[in-house]
Amino acid sequence: MPRFKLTLEYDGRPFVGWQRQANGMSVQQALEEALARIDSPARVNGAGRTDAGVHATAQVAHVDLVKPWTGDRLREAMNAHLRRWPVAVLLAEAAPDDFDARFSATRRRYVYRILARRAPPSFARGLVWHVARRLDADAMHAAAQRLIGRHDFTTFRAAECQANSPVRTLERLDVTRHGETIEVFAAARSFLHHQVRSLVGSLEHVGSGKWRAEDLEDALHARERARCGQVAPPDGLYLVGVDYGDGAPT
Amino acid sequence: MPRFKLTLEYDGRPFVGWQRQANGMSVQQALEEALARIDSPARVNGAGRTDAGVHATAQVAHVDLVKPWTGDRLREAMNAHLRRWPVAVLLAEAAPDDFDARFSATRRRYVYRILARRAPPSFARGLVWHVARRLDADAMHAAAQRLIGRHDFTTFRAAECQANSPVRTLERLDVTRHGETIEVFAAARSFLHHQVRSLVGSLEHVGSGKWRAEDLEDALHARERARCGQVAPPDGLYLVGVDYGDGAPT
Repeated sequence: MPRFKLTLEYDGRPFVGWQRQANGMSVQQALEEALARIDSPARVNGAGRTDAGVHATAQVAHVDLVKPWTGDRLREAMNAHLRRWPVAVLLAEAAPDDFDARFSATRRRYVYRILARRAPPSFARGLVWHVARRLDADAMHAAAQRLIGRHDFTTFRAAECQANSPVRTLERLDVTRHGETIEVFAAARSFLHHQVRSLVGSLEHVGSGKWRAEDLEDALHARERARCGQVAPPDGLYLVGVDYGDGAPT
Repeated sequence: MPRFKLTLEYDGRPFVGWQRQANGMSVQQALEEALARIDSPARVNGAGRTDAGVHATAQVAHVDLVKPWTGDRLREAMNAHLRRWPVAVLLAEAAPDDFDARFSATRRRYVYRILARRAPPSFARGLVWHVARRLDADAMHAAAQRLIGRHDFTTFRAAECQANSPVRTLERLDVTRHGETIEVFAAARSFLHHQVRSLVGSLEHVGSGKWRAEDLEDALHARERARCGQVAPPDGLYLVGVDYGDGAPT
C-alpha cells in the first residue's frame, strides 16, 4: 500500500468543512470520492480539520493507495475527477509509511484576511471578513506580540474544543496591511478549536480602538471564554501551510 | 443636475458585460436599477465598455443625479442597493459638468492574469486564464516591448471592432511573474475591441515557446487579423484604472 502526501488547495465556501459529515459535502469526502474512481476506497487524513467555510492554499493530507502511481499522474487523475468542486491537488508525492499528515506535523500556518473599507467586497465575498471600519494594523501587531509564547489559551478556545490541554505555544502572530486588506499570520505546532478566529476577533477590537493592548493581555490571563472579544467569521481564514521539519516558519 | 464620478469594482462573471443588453444582466443595468431606487432614472456612462466576463477593480463612470448627495452618502446608498450583484461603488465624488468618464479619459490601464500551473484554480475559476504549461515571463516581457508605441493594430483587433482607425499608441505592455501567476499590464489612451486579449493570447505563444519575439513583431506588421495567435479568454482581464490627467501610468 504505497502512501502519498497530498498538498491541497480549496475554496471552503461550498463545504461543511474538512471532515466528513452527514449534513453536506466535505473536502475529505470530495477527495475520497475522486480516489474511489481511480484507485480503491481509501481514507484521506488531513493535517488540519478546517471548519465550514474555511479555506486552504496548502492543506496537507496522506492516503494509502493500491496502484503504483507516480506523483504527477496521481495529481492529474485526482484533479480530473475533482472538477465539480473547488478543490485542487497542487502536489502529490510518495511518502514513507510512517508519514502522518496530522501527527508528523511540526507547525501549522494560517493567514486571516480582513477587508477593511466601506464598500463591500465584489470578488471576495466569503473569502474575507469585511469590516467597514478603519483598523490600525500597527496597533494590532503590537498587541498581538503579547500573546506570543506558551500560554493557557482558554479565553481563545471554542467551548466545544476537544483538546486535552488549553496550553499552546504561539510562535508567530503578525499583522500587516496591504492596501485595504489586513492580514494576520499565525504559526504554532497546533492550534485549539477556533483559536485563530478568536485571536483575530479580539485583535479587531484593538484595531478599531475598542480595546487597548492591555485589554487583550488581560483577556488572555483571565482564562475565561467569556472574555474573548468576538470570534471572527470563517470566511477570512486560510490554512496556508503545514511543516514537517524543524525550520523557522516562512 | 449634479454630476458624479463613480469608481467601481465588479466581478464580471455573472454579467453580459458593462453595456445594457437584452440577453442578460449588465453592470450598467445593475447600477442604473440601484440609482432608480434612490434618485431618479439616470444613465450611467462608463469609461470602458468591458465585455462579458471581464472584471474591473477601478472602472470609472459618470452620472447626473437630481438629489444633492454627498459622495459618501451616495456610495453607501448605492452599495446598499447593489447587494444582489458583485458590484461595489468604491468612491463617489462630485464632478464638474464637463467631466465625461469616457471622453475625458487620457489613459486606460488593464491587468491580465494567467495562472500557469498544472492544477486548475480553486479560488479563481473565471478570474484567471488557466494555462497548464510553463510560461517564460521574461521572454514574454521582452517580446512585448516590440509592440510599444504607435502602430496599426489590425492584427490584434476584433473583426467587429467599431473604431474608426486601427491605429493606437500602446504606452506599456509589461509582463511580470508572481509565483504561479503571470500578470500582463497594459496602458494606452484607448484600446481597440479585444486588443488586450489578442495581445495576451499572442504573448502566451511566446511564453510557451511556440513563437519567437520576431513572430510577434511580424504578426503586428502583417496587419491581418488571421495572424493573431489566439484571443485570451475574458476571465483573466481586469480594468484596473482610468486616468484623467497627464501623469505617467502607475
